[in-house]
Amino acid sequence: MVDFMYNNPTEIIFGKDKENGIGEVLKRNSISRVLMIYGGGSIKRNGLYDRVTTSLSNAGIEWDEYGGIKSNPRVSDVDKASEAARGFNAEAVLSVGGGSVMDTGKAVAAATIAGCPVWDFFQGKPIREALPIFNIVTIAATASEMNAGFVLSNKATGEKFGIGSPFLHPRVSILNPVLTYSVSKDYTAYSAVDILSHVLEGYLTCTNEPVLMNYFVEGIIKTVIESTEIILQEPENYKARAEFMWAATMALNGTTKRGVEGVSSPNHMIEHGLSAVTDIAHGAGLAIVIPAWAKWYYKNNIPQFERLARIIFKKQTAEEGIIDLESWFKKIGAPTRLSDAGIKENQLDSIVEKAYLQGAFWGMDKDYPMEAIKTIMQEAI
Amino acid sequence: MVDFMYNNPTEIIFGKDKENGIGEVLKRNSISRVLMIYGGGSIKRNGLYDRVTTSLSNAGIEWDEYGGIKSNPRVSDVDKASEAARGFNAEAVLSVGGGSVMDTGKAVAAATIAGCPVWDFFQGKPIREALPIFNIVTIAATASEMNAGFVLSNKATGEKFGIGSPFLHPRVSILNPVLTYSVSKDYTAYSAVDILSHVLEGYLTCTNEPVLMNYFVEGIIKTVIESTEIILQEPENYKARAEFMWAATMALNGTTKRGVEGVSSPNHMIEHGLSAVTDIAHGAGLAIVIPAWAKWYYKNNIPQFERLARIIFKKQTAEEGIIDLESWFKKIGAPTRLSDAGIKENQLDSIVEKAYLQGAFWGMDKDYPMEAIKTIMQEAI
Repeated sequence: MVDFMYNNPTEIIFGKDKENGIGEVLKRNSISRVLMIYGGGSIKRNGLYDRVTTSLSNAGIEWDEYGGIKSNPRVSDVDKASEAARGFNAEAVLSVGGGSVMDTGKAVAAATIAGCPVWDFFQGKPIREALPIFNIVTIAATASEMNAGFVLSNKATGEKFGIGSPFLHPRVSILNPVLTYSVSKDYTAYSAVDILSHVLEGYLTCTNEPVLMNYFVEGIIKTVIESTEIILQEPENYKARAEFMWAATMALNGTTKRGVEGVSSPNHMIEHGLSAVTDIAHGAGLAIVIPAWAKWYYKNNIPQFERLARIIFKKQTAEEGIIDLESWFKKIGAPTRLSDAGIKENQLDSIVEKAYLQGAFWGMDKDYPMEAIKTIMQEAI
Repeated sequence: MVDFMYNNPTEIIFGKDKENGIGEVLKRNSISRVLMIYGGGSIKRNGLYDRVTTSLSNAGIEWDEYGGIKSNPRVSDVDKASEAARGFNAEAVLSVGGGSVMDTGKAVAAATIAGCPVWDFFQGKPIREALPIFNIVTIAATASEMNAGFVLSNKATGEKFGIGSPFLHPRVSILNPVLTYSVSKDYTAYSAVDILSHVLEGYLTCTNEPVLMNYFVEGIIKTVIESTEIILQEPENYKARAEFMWAATMALNGTTKRGVEGVSSPNHMIEHGLSAVTDIAHGAGLAIVIPAWAKWYYKNNIPQFERLARIIFKKQTAEEGIIDLESWFKKIGAPTRLSDAGIKENQLDSIVEKAYLQGAFWGMDKDYPMEAIKTIMQEAI
């Protein structure tokens, strides 16, 4: 086991109706002014916006808001929202939404205090502080609610980068599985793939045969597979939504990678290139990238690929495990080839280039030169 | 899944030689005066004491110390150490040892500020504050390094009670598996039983068929069984000691019980009675209590007992699972009957009475009246 540090101070409040207590949560954290961030407006249509603002009012919290955050969130929105937060003297950021909204909220929390364009952080400026971050989660997938990272897209440069800092741990995240009942079948499938990717990347690249962490990862994979299949039949099955939601959080809150050696994130690296160029949903992009990468990579780590095959799919060989994983993605309705998502071969070169830039940013460019990324993507045609 | 809150802000620093950085750890936490607490002096013989105090000196940290903490730690030691901490104006407590030392440190951290005998907390006085708590862990078992509880024995009243408070989360715990190399075979076995008990109690009493948490618990059980068997053969196997140590922490840091319904702690309740009367090592006491309790209880929760049998021991029936669990305790050298530990039948009544008092303190006396506890203990003769 390799040396590690672990510290995750985020408070999780999990269960039905918990979002109605957000005002009191902010109050006991000594917050009196908050910038609320949200997405395309579904929270206004389904009543969540009203319940949250009522809770804020009842607790005497003043708020301003910045809505309209899109999937693959953008630096331009972060910069505008940070300006709003500064103008309002916000003491905290409250994100109400899924991964894109939460990632925007984290970026705003850092950029508001730094008083700079958020892209500066991607060009070497360190994050030294952030406003306290609060979340009400409406889609289970990214674990942004309990980790210290965010991912943004820069439409001006066509880039999509991820970044992390210990100051970005949310203070409190509220997880109510009922809020995810309305997540559509396709986005449930994409979320399932995203969650699996967060544990599979570590599991399939690790080099020191971890014991406990392998068992935890296999537990998360089994939970996601079982609960996704129930949710696709019964979108309002509380238990399945709850297990899925908690598995999503545990998949990327730091737990499963402690002590694990050699872990890298090649699937996220490539997918960031894919969605920077095509704006495909992140989980859908991963469903295309993971099988292609696995076919290219598995011979480097036969023991872990064979474990996946044996323990998850009751098969013997690494190859069979990859085939079954891809089949499961198809079964739940995720695309597994570029053509399934309407992506053309003539977009490949720019996808490869953007992925390579992400890899360079993460220090992975030696292991993943452009030719390697291109070979992988050609598996996905 | 039942509603839950989760918040565990403890920072873990895991790996070889990490204890040598304790001075810097305290410094960056703005601590300049610390009370160091330790046990019977093995840390002086093996050089750990010197390395820790050198690190403190190098970082400019002043310290006082309170040594001699025994297994099943006592209120009298806590009160004396708290007085020492107040006299020294300690700004933090540093525990260097196993569960007993860490539990004493937590109690001292709370009692020092409250300025009262620690037993007051067991008689209704709330814990409202505590000095920052730091640990260097030398035995893996109790997870006290990453949870918010402690257990003390009151020799004056013959009681042994556990208590918890969010103020008792350690600030930083340093886990170096090498420090556990010297843990003897019998204490390694008792520790294994203790770790298993921390997950088995929840697993075998839960009533809502958790998915992810069942998988996590089974992962911890498998890890403990596998690593214990290696350690008993090769006490200096780093990987096995490390997996064992991290499994110990994860077993009782709050992770495995989130969302799980109906969980209770009957084995700890009874064992606290047993060790209050006999001073048996906690893990050894648990090895006697668990099989006896399981035989009495299992018909109330056949699905979970059958899972244990099937997934851990590759057997079919609940009864076979219990037999295999008891056999494994025997195999690793833990006592499984009162007579194995030299406990006489004429001690039973007072053990039962003390266990009942612990149950009453935890609100379990309805489910565990004295007759029930007596019936369970008679299984252990």
